[in-house]
Amino acid sequence: MNVHIIFNIIGRLLLLLGFIMIIPLFVALYYGEPIEPFTVAITMTILVGTVFLFLFRSTEDEWHHREGFAIVALGWLFAAIFGSIPYMLDGVTPLNAFFESMSGFTTTGSTVFVNIEAHPKGILFWRNMTEWLGGMGIIVLFIAILPKLGVAGRQMFRAEVPGPQEDKLKPRIRETSKILWMVYLVVSIAEAIALKLAGLSVYDAVTHTFTTVSCGGFSPYARSIEAFGSPLVETIIMVFIFISGANFALHYKTLYASRKSLIKDDEFKFYSFVIFSAIALLTLILWRDINIPIIESLRYAAFQVLTIITTTGYATTDFIAWPHSAQMILLILMFAGGCAGSTAGGPKMVRWLLMLKYSRREIFKVIHRRAVTRIKFNKKSVPEDIMQSVISFIAIYFLIFAASSVLLGLLGMDLVSSITASIATLGNIGPGLGAVGPMDNFDVVPALGKVALIGNMWMGRLEIFTVFVMLTPEYWKKW
Amino acid sequence: MNVHIIFNIIGRLLLLLGFIMIIPLFVALYYGEPIEPFTVAITMTILVGTVFLFLFRSTEDEWHHREGFAIVALGWLFAAIFGSIPYMLDGVTPLNAFFESMSGFTTTGSTVFVNIEAHPKGILFWRNMTEWLGGMGIIVLFIAILPKLGVAGRQMFRAEVPGPQEDKLKPRIRETSKILWMVYLVVSIAEAIALKLAGLSVYDAVTHTFTTVSCGGFSPYARSIEAFGSPLVETIIMVFIFISGANFALHYKTLYASRKSLIKDDEFKFYSFVIFSAIALLTLILWRDINIPIIESLRYAAFQVLTIITTTGYATTDFIAWPHSAQMILLILMFAGGCAGSTAGGPKMVRWLLMLKYSRREIFKVIHRRAVTRIKFNKKSVPEDIMQSVISFIAIYFLIFAASSVLLGLLGMDLVSSITASIATLGNIGPGLGAVGPMDNFDVVPALGKVALIGNMWMGRLEIFTVFVMLTPEYWKKW
Repeated sequence: MNVHIIFNIIGRLLLLLGFIMIIPLFVALYYGEPIEPFTVAITMTILVGTVFLFLFRSTEDEWHHREGFAIVALGWLFAAIFGSIPYMLDGVTPLNAFFESMSGFTTTGSTVFVNIEAHPKGILFWRNMTEWLGGMGIIVLFIAILPKLGVAGRQMFRAEVPGPQEDKLKPRIRETSKILWMVYLVVSIAEAIALKLAGLSVYDAVTHTFTTVSCGGFSPYARSIEAFGSPLVETIIMVFIFISGANFALHYKTLYASRKSLIKDDEFKFYSFVIFSAIALLTLILWRDINIPIIESLRYAAFQVLTIITTTGYATTDFIAWPHSAQMILLILMFAGGCAGSTAGGPKMVRWLLMLKYSRREIFKVIHRRAVTRIKFNKKSVPEDIMQSVISFIAIYFLIFAASSVLLGLLGMDLVSSITASIATLGNIGPGLGAVGPMDNFDVVPALGKVALIGNMWMGRLEIFTVFVMLTPEYWKKW
Repeated sequence: MNVHIIFNIIGRLLLLLGFIMIIPLFVALYYGEPIEPFTVAITMTILVGTVFLFLFRSTEDEWHHREGFAIVALGWLFAAIFGSIPYMLDGVTPLNAFFESMSGFTTTGSTVFVNIEAHPKGILFWRNMTEWLGGMGIIVLFIAILPKLGVAGRQMFRAEVPGPQEDKLKPRIRETSKILWMVYLVVSIAEAIALKLAGLSVYDAVTHTFTTVSCGGFSPYARSIEAFGSPLVETIIMVFIFISGANFALHYKTLYASRKSLIKDDEFKFYSFVIFSAIALLTLILWRDINIPIIESLRYAAFQVLTIITTTGYATTDFIAWPHSAQMILLILMFAGGCAGSTAGGPKMVRWLLMLKYSRREIFKVIHRRAVTRIKFNKKSVPEDIMQSVISFIAIYFLIFAASSVLLGLLGMDLVSSITASIATLGNIGPGLGAVGPMDNFDVVPALGKVALIGNMWMGRLEIFTVFVMLTPEYWKKW
């Protein structure tokens, strides 16, 4: 393994991170808040980055398969470590600061801040900005890095980001990343303007844009989006959540190539179908069981379904007070995840769709014993090795989910809180149910549990395999 | 489809069932209880059976692929319907009687009887006997019927009952069934004698033998095995639960062929490993968290782990009063299931073992991109189509589990009760957690929920596909 190239890239990443932190520094200056959290963090981050670049010179310009896993996994880890410095200097304990920072860079949105509004605006700006940066990271990860790591022999993730590569819309990965970042930026600017026009302050509009387009879900307010009490703001956020949970490559194609790219996509159709069914069911429940007027029910239901399925994790109401039936719907949705090639986390719609098709084929095979049927996605046959990696992903996903649920149980948390805290972090959603509901926080989780949940967020965001592979003895053997 | 052969076989089954009911009739006579529940049930069952035989004459002696599904699914359904007549005449509502009867014939052990001891001894004898009959049915199903249905093109279930077929120990299916019934009978007699020697009455020894060897879990006592308060009785039951949850074909081979058949089997090793790890962990929890002396903790832990993992469902204590950590262990175990070729329900150890190997292979493939690795089970490669049916089974299993959990949630049950009631019935375990704990009963479930849970028991016991296939439009098309 070429350690030099790994830490050379990490070094460059830290330099970049250090310079980016100048933005929240200016926010702190503007509001007349203490700037030490940022000046110290910037100095340390740039210093360590420079030391890395000095120590690890690399003559090669290209990293290879094996180094790729380390770069991705350590890249997110180092970003989370150095990104937590401002929180520590703001008085947060190191473990909590690291939890919050990892939650940000993985666009999770689970928080351990007990009294959010007590923190300075600059810190909360940084907290939301980490999610936006994490979202950018995910896009480059999906487009440029994961296909190169070539999970499943063939390029599983290339299949998942069908737009640019498969159709040779733009041949070069570097250019594709830039294009998708542009889409991300355009969507961000559009949302910020819309929120400003809807009456939010610039600060509120920008911070919430950061966490909408990244499917993150942090808010500078403890009551999340409920704090605004504005149906217009909620509607704008819903629209952008829906966009951010869908494939960015398809957005690009829809804008610049074929208008029907989105609506012709099997995953997008499935995504929309699940969302609309869940909203309809949840509206009915809220209206029937707790007598919320039908329009209000629709408003709550639509917002909550969208925010959970896209793994954003905002709330407009404390849904742990909802009836069991409504909570069960949300619990199931927590296992879904948005579309591949979006900033959403979770197993993703395409994997569930393929699993459903796979199971349906088996039923068909039981009846027609000699028939040979192929699983189709977007009118093309899905190769067996891609199917295998989809299945293994879901299996390992549930394994990690079960293990961390048991661990939280062992640490004394109740069943519902253990289960939902695990899935909320592994799926990069944010809030769970029980003790970790949307208006509560993860500070109730014991220290060891927090460490496990940090691991969940990290693994979940990097599509499991990237981190999980490094935990196997195989990885460390000579290969 | 040849309807004649289907109802001809169902008719023979009903005749058999009618004659078997003479046994509980004698029990009722012995205890001087009303015999109408049985006389009426016997008359009706034999009458309908005879009418079926009269109406549906079949010249063919052999049924085919398509009829097989209907025979199995309807066979269990008719047994449950006619087996419920004695309960109805004992004053139980039709839905509850059907629930209890299906719970019996599927060896589930979930009960809707609110005050168990208030029912006559003859009725309770019949209730336990239905589980024993269900266990016999399962053995013939696995050995003689499912391989013929040839799920997954090849003979998935033949692979699961490796003993007799694969090794050509005894070539003919009919003989194999007889041999395994002999094993079942020998194990039953051994347990009944052991329990009698341990001080139980003949009635208690026989009824509990019925529900141990079938991994059923009914007891004529509301407090289940706790009622005896005897460590010796518990130990005997534990031994026989452990035996009944393992492959009966392997028991036969161990007794009459190779002594090391059991301990050389991959599934049995995995089964033992999971059991011993879970017992160790649970003992530690009970000892540490609620200060039960270590020996007592071991006693409770061993009993409860065995009873849940083999899907028996007895209890020696009300485990819903245990700490969250202990309940979490039990919840995870509810998804396990015993060994294939046993009377246990659930997804079975072999499927989980294969899933683990499958996922591990994917990790390996991510690292060694060009390596070709085969999944091995008992030193033989597992064919891809068997692997496919294992995966589809687990996927559909979870789909049904999720759907029925949501339904119970919609009907107003809390999350833990909904989830565990679903898995407890689908896995043919018996008790769940929350409102459906071991000392509670399923009468709290709303009527529609009971219907769904009856469906769970039915599908779960018949290895999902057998029933599920019939629910697809494909099955009813011409083929």
